[in-house]
Amino acid sequence: MTGAEILLKTAVNAGVEICFTNPGTTELPLVSAFDTVPGIRPILGLFEGCCTGAADGYGRMTGQPAMTLLHLGPGLGNGIANLHNARRARTPVLNVIGEHATWHRSADSPLSMDIVALAESVSGWQRTSTVSQHLSQDTADAITAALSGKVATLIVPSDVQWSEKSGDDKIHPPKAFDGFVETESIERAVALLRTEKKAALILGGWALRPSGLAAAARIKIQTGCDLISERAPARMERGVGIPATEFIPYFPRQALALLSKYQIVVLAGTDEPVTFFGWKGYESRLLNDNQDICQIKAAGKRLPQALENLADALEAPRSIDTAVTGCSQVERPALPQGQLTAQNACLILAALQPENAIIVNESITSGADYFPLGAGLPPHTLLMLPGGAIGYGIPCAVGAAIACPRRPVINFQADGSALYTLQALWMQARESLNITTLICSNRSYNILNIEFSRSGITSPGRYAQTLTDLGNPAIDWAQISQGMGVPAVAVDSCESLARELKIALDEPGPHLIEMML
Amino acid sequence: MTGAEILLKTAVNAGVEICFTNPGTTELPLVSAFDTVPGIRPILGLFEGCCTGAADGYGRMTGQPAMTLLHLGPGLGNGIANLHNARRARTPVLNVIGEHATWHRSADSPLSMDIVALAESVSGWQRTSTVSQHLSQDTADAITAALSGKVATLIVPSDVQWSEKSGDDKIHPPKAFDGFVETESIERAVALLRTEKKAALILGGWALRPSGLAAAARIKIQTGCDLISERAPARMERGVGIPATEFIPYFPRQALALLSKYQIVVLAGTDEPVTFFGWKGYESRLLNDNQDICQIKAAGKRLPQALENLADALEAPRSIDTAVTGCSQVERPALPQGQLTAQNACLILAALQPENAIIVNESITSGADYFPLGAGLPPHTLLMLPGGAIGYGIPCAVGAAIACPRRPVINFQADGSALYTLQALWMQARESLNITTLICSNRSYNILNIEFSRSGITSPGRYAQTLTDLGNPAIDWAQISQGMGVPAVAVDSCESLARELKIALDEPGPHLIEMML
Repeated sequence: MTGAEILLKTAVNAGVEICFTNPGTTELPLVSAFDTVPGIRPILGLFEGCCTGAADGYGRMTGQPAMTLLHLGPGLGNGIANLHNARRARTPVLNVIGEHATWHRSADSPLSMDIVALAESVSGWQRTSTVSQHLSQDTADAITAALSGKVATLIVPSDVQWSEKSGDDKIHPPKAFDGFVETESIERAVALLRTEKKAALILGGWALRPSGLAAAARIKIQTGCDLISERAPARMERGVGIPATEFIPYFPRQALALLSKYQIVVLAGTDEPVTFFGWKGYESRLLNDNQDICQIKAAGKRLPQALENLADALEAPRSIDTAVTGCSQVERPALPQGQLTAQNACLILAALQPENAIIVNESITSGADYFPLGAGLPPHTLLMLPGGAIGYGIPCAVGAAIACPRRPVINFQADGSALYTLQALWMQARESLNITTLICSNRSYNILNIEFSRSGITSPGRYAQTLTDLGNPAIDWAQISQGMGVPAVAVDSCESLARELKIALDEPGPHLIEMML
Repeated sequence: MTGAEILLKTAVNAGVEICFTNPGTTELPLVSAFDTVPGIRPILGLFEGCCTGAADGYGRMTGQPAMTLLHLGPGLGNGIANLHNARRARTPVLNVIGEHATWHRSADSPLSMDIVALAESVSGWQRTSTVSQHLSQDTADAITAALSGKVATLIVPSDVQWSEKSGDDKIHPPKAFDGFVETESIERAVALLRTEKKAALILGGWALRPSGLAAAARIKIQTGCDLISERAPARMERGVGIPATEFIPYFPRQALALLSKYQIVVLAGTDEPVTFFGWKGYESRLLNDNQDICQIKAAGKRLPQALENLADALEAPRSIDTAVTGCSQVERPALPQGQLTAQNACLILAALQPENAIIVNESITSGADYFPLGAGLPPHTLLMLPGGAIGYGIPCAVGAAIACPRRPVINFQADGSALYTLQALWMQARESLNITTLICSNRSYNILNIEFSRSGITSPGRYAQTLTDLGNPAIDWAQISQGMGVPAVAVDSCESLARELKIALDEPGPHLIEMML
């Protein structure tokens, strides 16, 4: 067996089924090995940021790492932004980078870069393999790290890939990750929540899965605490019958208005919330020294169990009253009519999204009115952007659709962000994925306009205006999408959006709708 | 003055006229400052790789750094690949990265990354500004470094940008860079070239400008040495009346066949050539221990002078005989007819390219037949890809056209590579740049197919085939280009290519022609 085959066999043995890749010459032994090692399917992306974003979406939906296979330092560089997002989302990713042959490194040939330094910026674990004899253990160690919610980067020189391994062909398994829990932190939360003080339970990670939310709802019923989710969760389950949460707002004034109401804050699956940027006039912290704060020290699948233990210790009732915790029946908004606005787009999406949909939300400013509607919709999964690096939506939808081929995926997508990784539309066409992309076409980096007005600049100068304006020339998303192989239309009325969205959801395969807002 | 204004004033004072940017919230003080500091024009790119690639193209054509302005670590990450190319091209770049406010760094908010580690992978110089009082000196130091042929990265926290500087408003100048020369290295070259042994003079950097090539031609006339250029020069002048060189081939067998002919190798403006990859069966070195090798230690504008000194020391004639050194009259190929092939595309480009054109060549496998034709064409500038990170062509053309608005720019562009940074087409439309993009549409990563056959794999497996195939679905470049605002057509015959290329070159503004090969 070659080193490449050992790597893939170890990955397959550990349950890795998909590799998102844009390979080059230094990865060719691994490219060849996909044909000799059954059980793992490579999927080509036209740009590495599309591969890493797809791996993020896949890992969020399966809990299992997808493999990436990227070409040297420049390939990793192109994938960095979405690996950053995966890191912040605590998504398991087996991030494999081909490197020059070991003996060629010192030649400093054209594509040579300091891959280790690059990888450090996004990796929770990394290693450079030096001999094929260790490659199975290296791969297993990488997957062990990935399963704990990390981007695990394995750098594999091409000669290590192509060399034949001597000796036995033992395939090493990774260690399973069940998470962990520290019971002392639960005891402290119990003590705090037993007081009469106004309390918030801020949830993130696995606490936003149905089991975590159900346990949190028990605590809410027993103690009267409010349930709040982190600002932009990597994944949460929403909809009728699922306990509802309020999101921490993006802007600091609104976030402080929400969080300063509480005397007690219990964090579960998330760290203390901080402002998104260092805004003038605000501190980084959103909590303060007058609040009693405790964090439940638990992670992974043990986190929902920790919340159950907390509920039990508080002697919370076993059953959840949906009148207290959320909606008990579907409450869809009526379909609006007339001119298409961002608000109307939100209403139409909420009115029409199918049960069990996966909503990949990178709508930035256009989607604000969508979130409050989620609790009353049929159950669905919401994927957001904890890392904040724009350009995750289109590829994340690819990964989610590969992970869950029987679920409809809707990508509610800001136009400026979509332009970062638009090449992933081609992956949707190539893989015939059931994805509907709704482009929020406001032809601006609108968040920057909002930032200007927040800082008192109501009429930015000429150059400042040009730097937030995407309208000159306007991007024609329908043409671009069709050029990538995805059927597309542009709509400018509520009626046409509703009609085209129904068509897109009814037909198999990918569709794109440019919503002229 | 704010820190942002000080930075821009220092840049303008040093001759920086253009900033390619995709800013975010942490760069807004600099965005505002473009309207209060005259002399520098910001140009928006829809993706950071387009900005950094444009800065590379601009710097190659002007010798002056363009500024970039990128948003935090993810923005830098997106720009890494083309910064790598700029580094390998020794292009001056003032690479400015906005960072979180100093007091916000420790909050580890969503977009926080280790920007320093990222920047190290591509920067020849870098610094993080900590107070606005030092920002003029920091900027001047960055430009000093850039002018010596480096990517100089200046990381500027947002509070340093927005804070008002107290005290005097002194604007610091950078130090000019004239290059350097070590005369001892010239003496060694003189001694070697005076022998009767077969010699090659391998040229790179400033040695490939007309003055360097003229000096090299004098040496060739006097000593009989051959003139060779590095594999893929960042910039060289070619055409009738300009001394011609042979390129070092990409594949090692051909490169060794060329270079092993020589007993003496003199390097000027380039390091010892090495293989592009660590190929099985080949060493990294392309020269060997039996050859007498010397490098002329000179850089920048002093390098052509060093070659003149070398020619003088060899008592070379003052005038150049173009019969010996290249073509003395224009020799364009005839226009081919019939089916469009890669070879015919090369002939048509050579037959029609205007005098004084800038040819941005990222044709990878399709352009092989173009290079031998260059010596007989009207004088033109050729920009290639010393760094090897694909996706430089479209943005590099943007930068070259901004730098030289009166020169026609032709981007001879492989399709797979074009997909990396296709968003730069929009910059061409927005800025009404006189660029003709010729897409070599072979719908494959053909270089990988060649690599497979080189390694004896004549029929790659099913998965390996899918990973080199861009044809399912085929990209419709005309649609994508029009969607970005650039008029476009697809052609599949020699006649239609010739007709459309003439139209594109006659009309102002950008055009794209998809050549179906």
